[in-house]
Amino acid sequence: MNEKVNLADAFAKVDAPFRPLIVARLNDHKVMVAKVRGEFVWHKHDDTDDFFLVLSGRLTIQLRDRDVIVEAGELFVVPRGVEHCPRADEDVELLLIEPLGTVNTGDAVESELTAAERDLDDL
Amino acid sequence: MNEKVNLADAFAKVDAPFRPLIVARLNDHKVMVAKVRGEFVWHKHDDTDDFFLVLSGRLTIQLRDRDVIVEAGELFVVPRGVEHCPRADEDVELLLIEPLGTVNTGDAVESELTAAERDLDDL
Repeated sequence: MNEKVNLADAFAKVDAPFRPLIVARLNDHKVMVAKVRGEFVWHKHDDTDDFFLVLSGRLTIQLRDRDVIVEAGELFVVPRGVEHCPRADEDVELLLIEPLGTVNTGDAVESELTAAERDLDDL
Repeated sequence: MNEKVNLADAFAKVDAPFRPLIVARLNDHKVMVAKVRGEFVWHKHDDTDDFFLVLSGRLTIQLRDRDVIVEAGELFVVPRGVEHCPRADEDVELLLIEPLGTVNTGDAVESELTAAERDLDDL
């Protein structure tokens, strides 16, 4: 974890959509790369904001009252407690940041998309 | 702060090197854009790691025992307590993340490069 991370190299190791890979740690937070395609699951995190930076493609972050369209080179932070459901109508590459231990599908949702924390250095 | 951030638009509002602009908050952390050119100042943060993502250009993060060359599309986290001095031999655009309240020049250094926290929404 003491080396720089090349994001293209990291994305090359991502093997499935919605399965983030931890590439760095920042204090108590994990920095992840993820590829997404399709619709995730409605969820929320009561104790943390949820950081999305789109590196390629276009991501629709569905909120209950609106959609936020996040294009490459744009970021959005879902505030804690706010239900959201990301949807990608094309291949999207994301940088995500959440506290270590945060479950990707949120506080109350266990789904087939729930993914264990995986570390780039462990692959 | 409840809207998405277009990084190109945010960089267009950065008016001076080494003067970061807060574009979002993530829990107790601030997400900033910064342009740098030239050499910063040796400093460290005893209580926090220091996140650098290079969006354009090439940044040299000088550590006491080595240089880390961070290119566009690469990130590096300087661990807490580690002295570092970023240097940009060309124009570099960065995304930075640190806890709110962190002084850019570190714990012990007051210099002409010490910058107040400034918020994109306040410009």
